[in-house]
Amino acid sequence: MPVEIITSLKNPRLKRLVRLRDRRPRDEERAFLVEGYREVRRALESKVALDELYYSPGWFLGENEPALLATAAAAGATLFELSKDAFAKVAYRERPDGILAVAPQWRRTLAGLALPAEPLLLVVEAIEKPGNLGTILRSADAAGCHAVIMCDPVTDLFNPNVVRASTGVVFSVPCVVEESGAVHAWLKGRGIRAVATTPAAGNLYTESDLRGPLAVVMGSEQYGLSAFWLGNADLCVRIPMAGHADSLNVAMAALITLFEAVRQRGGVR
Amino acid sequence: MPVEIITSLKNPRLKRLVRLRDRRPRDEERAFLVEGYREVRRALESKVALDELYYSPGWFLGENEPALLATAAAAGATLFELSKDAFAKVAYRERPDGILAVAPQWRRTLAGLALPAEPLLLVVEAIEKPGNLGTILRSADAAGCHAVIMCDPVTDLFNPNVVRASTGVVFSVPCVVEESGAVHAWLKGRGIRAVATTPAAGNLYTESDLRGPLAVVMGSEQYGLSAFWLGNADLCVRIPMAGHADSLNVAMAALITLFEAVRQRGGVR
Repeated sequence: MPVEIITSLKNPRLKRLVRLRDRRPRDEERAFLVEGYREVRRALESKVALDELYYSPGWFLGENEPALLATAAAAGATLFELSKDAFAKVAYRERPDGILAVAPQWRRTLAGLALPAEPLLLVVEAIEKPGNLGTILRSADAAGCHAVIMCDPVTDLFNPNVVRASTGVVFSVPCVVEESGAVHAWLKGRGIRAVATTPAAGNLYTESDLRGPLAVVMGSEQYGLSAFWLGNADLCVRIPMAGHADSLNVAMAALITLFEAVRQRGGVR
Repeated sequence: MPVEIITSLKNPRLKRLVRLRDRRPRDEERAFLVEGYREVRRALESKVALDELYYSPGWFLGENEPALLATAAAAGATLFELSKDAFAKVAYRERPDGILAVAPQWRRTLAGLALPAEPLLLVVEAIEKPGNLGTILRSADAAGCHAVIMCDPVTDLFNPNVVRASTGVVFSVPCVVEESGAVHAWLKGRGIRAVATTPAAGNLYTESDLRGPLAVVMGSEQYGLSAFWLGNADLCVRIPMAGHADSLNVAMAALITLFEAVRQRGGVR
């Protein structure tokens, strides 16, 4: 099938790609942008169906792009070639690499999660910065978290900066968005302990039992954990801090706590 | 003493501030930029002498700025008030807060470090991205590292993005720039074990002894550790990884390893 080549900067497809940077049109269309070779490859590896793939050979950085395009097309994506100028208009990154896809949004539910007998979960509350959420997803992936649960998030999972900062992990780590009360009830019902991380806790995270079915709960960047989670967590733990109070951000604190849980559980599973 | 008010966008002082964003003029002048209320406060708390402080009340975000200016002036900084337009020209950040200082660069040496009997050090090799270096400094600060040693760095400590990403920790954590061979000889002479972190190691970091005088050695973002450090480290350890190979970047790997060392050593010291 011949590929359509877009050179006009006024092409309505280009305008749509720019619109999808914003949340409202993204949610209305239930679609989102996946920019970059690595991210698109991760999406395909995770069997995420791409609707469309826009590419511009003048921006390619390597030699593997044609193979990626073939894989995407075989998986059902419609391909469009863009002139260098046209791609510059739709690229969100400072240094584009000539690959930009549109994928359908998805919505996972707590009930739909397939979990082992002793899951390790990460619950994050009201995360504001897309970059932090992306880094948190990387941490969860590295630690082998079985799911990340976002309570009352300020940023959405499909923000282009989340996709980017997650280096595409957003496609492989199961993420659920749910209200805090429902998450707490679900954890209780499943027998999963909620361990909240807060500087005010008496117990050190390294001296607390982080084995068994576990959900590590982290608060927002600016306000920390809400009264709801501080009051309803099964255990509160703290990370010792030598330096300035804000030396650890939420993504760093999540990383430290998850890897301590991994250590106590005898490794990544 | 009356404060000079700068409104002309052609004022040579403004041009100098813009010039100092680049490494060569920064190094020639042996000066650097400190932008932001938090960062300037950290500099003053750490007794870093500021040469000049530029401020613009139209950009202030809070009410504590006048007290900060008074502290800076009392510590010897020359103050300049800028019009809102003039400050917009010199601000490096996307969202300026009306505070920008110039401080003299410093140079610490290995011999000049004051260390306890059982120091915890972080050695980083050829770090390229200022943002990563800044985050690494935050991790070192949080873990109570006694010094960060930068071998053959690609980015310099005084890059505005290092100062920013470090949230001002650059002023409180002692940092030394030195060539790898000299660092290794110095560690040997001081009886400090070098523990290299590499995915190829057989020993898990959690099952290796990280107590006693210790230097955690981390490689560059793109190439990992050099043959020199892989061959000369006293021990190589690896962090278990569940997810994608690049889920952990160098700053995250440093954070995990340092906090495991802190745990084994019985807490932050």
